[in-house]
Amino acid sequence: MTAALLACDWGTTNLRAWVLDGDGVVIEGRDFDLGVSRLRPGEAAERFRDQVRPGLRAEGLPAVLCGMIGSNLGWLTAGYLPCPAKIEDLAKGLVQADGAAWIVPGLRAEGMAGHADVMRGEETQLFGWLLADPARLRGRRIVCHPGTHAKWVVIEDGRIVAFTTFMTGELFAVLRQHSVLKTTAPADDESAFDAGLEAAGDGAFAARLFTARTRLVAGDADPASAAGYLSGLLIGGEVAAAPERAGWIAGEPVALVGDARLCRWYARALAARGVASDIHDGEQAAMAGLASIARQRGLL
Amino acid sequence: MTAALLACDWGTTNLRAWVLDGDGVVIEGRDFDLGVSRLRPGEAAERFRDQVRPGLRAEGLPAVLCGMIGSNLGWLTAGYLPCPAKIEDLAKGLVQADGAAWIVPGLRAEGMAGHADVMRGEETQLFGWLLADPARLRGRRIVCHPGTHAKWVVIEDGRIVAFTTFMTGELFAVLRQHSVLKTTAPADDESAFDAGLEAAGDGAFAARLFTARTRLVAGDADPASAAGYLSGLLIGGEVAAAPERAGWIAGEPVALVGDARLCRWYARALAARGVASDIHDGEQAAMAGLASIARQRGLL
Repeated sequence: MTAALLACDWGTTNLRAWVLDGDGVVIEGRDFDLGVSRLRPGEAAERFRDQVRPGLRAEGLPAVLCGMIGSNLGWLTAGYLPCPAKIEDLAKGLVQADGAAWIVPGLRAEGMAGHADVMRGEETQLFGWLLADPARLRGRRIVCHPGTHAKWVVIEDGRIVAFTTFMTGELFAVLRQHSVLKTTAPADDESAFDAGLEAAGDGAFAARLFTARTRLVAGDADPASAAGYLSGLLIGGEVAAAPERAGWIAGEPVALVGDARLCRWYARALAARGVASDIHDGEQAAMAGLASIARQRGLL
Repeated sequence: MTAALLACDWGTTNLRAWVLDGDGVVIEGRDFDLGVSRLRPGEAAERFRDQVRPGLRAEGLPAVLCGMIGSNLGWLTAGYLPCPAKIEDLAKGLVQADGAAWIVPGLRAEGMAGHADVMRGEETQLFGWLLADPARLRGRRIVCHPGTHAKWVVIEDGRIVAFTTFMTGELFAVLRQHSVLKTTAPADDESAFDAGLEAAGDGAFAARLFTARTRLVAGDADPASAAGYLSGLLIGGEVAAAPERAGWIAGEPVALVGDARLCRWYARALAARGVASDIHDGEQAAMAGLASIARQRGLL
């Protein structure tokens, strides 16, 4: 196997990099603690040259990077392409960052309240997931990408046509760390999660949230269940609202693409509403998307 | 004017104390930086004796205290009385804290998700507000008490019959300080508040919230407007959801009792939905409630 491409999913909190061979097969993969939120302005290029490339013995290889590295906090701003968009649009829209590194642009779609919704990084994973099975390139798919800012995406015939962002992961993090609901309890409590799901719904969010406090004040629940309940309440609320917002048709199954552990909680929340889903690894999808984009530009 | 009663609204972040004469008229009022969240276990009694009483030259006066001082974080736990409840129930339910200090119990009502909702401190203000005009003691009243944990209350013939808590103020605080929406912009921006109101609604909260980010990413709005928009989005969402949750009948006017500045933003959000409201000072209401409770127990 000869190293042929350096593929990077460079996000807000972490950088995941892989060296791929000419067939797009992984030779080596590595995480770097270089999320763009930790970088000083102008630091990305230097870190990429002095740390990422040597760390993977990938000096001189063509590199394709997706994620927040293409934002104003990253290396350079790679812009947002409009929807509907297909992977060929991303390949054409690559922005050259240095002699051998290209950055994938993000996507924008019609959003709520008259403002464009945006994604950056997820689009590459979504197209990589689509390419893994030719059947996915035909017809309509509803995909959810859980995370700090979860994305619900409608795909038609291989094109991303619409998406909606939910700040569910971030709400969980700030409430768990900084509010009256503060807790160090573990979040992986299935029965507490299910209790949260039951209390969730589309509407009266700030009131539903208070149940995470009253169940403890009233002595109805063990404080050790606090994080699991909050997680169920928030993911349940997202799943209750997503269909209407994301142009979902009742009964359509959902593909969950992303962190497998988090996807399993979404699958549980969907199942509680009678919706079928299946889980697909986000890293595999990112690699496949980056390899395909590189190939279309003759970089692989 | 002879000092006759020491009345205290002792909350999570602040202690407001007044010396009243025999007619319930204020002789002197003072704030102490002694919110129960800052107290060590057991510290309340000592602070009350060594700091509050001397600070107001109120040694030996009978004292009535309402608010979180009656919680497990305060002086002692004064419990929660069930709804429907009238002010006579609070007076009967006073819990003696020392030789001359009594604590007002809180209230509990049927809440969401099978857990009792609770209030502590607001009930005294609400009854004080009711007593200020005998007409308010007859018929049905919808009262909103804005704050960290806003309360929407249904009052019938002088009894609190139901209420619902919304964590709107706390969501605003944690998102403004700790999330990707972090901003030091001032919140008193009317046009940004109105834009937030337009984006608000009952449902898809985590998705609506992301518009507070996308409007900046898209360059549609000035970062200086970020806090005003977030405030409108959150208060607007509360006002959209409150009627259904709080047993409100469409068209009923709302009495806003509490901090006058915050009440004005709620009035603006209600007006945008065609709902009439009027604003009543929470401090006056607290004093009146405490004086009435004291009188019923022969302490004034």
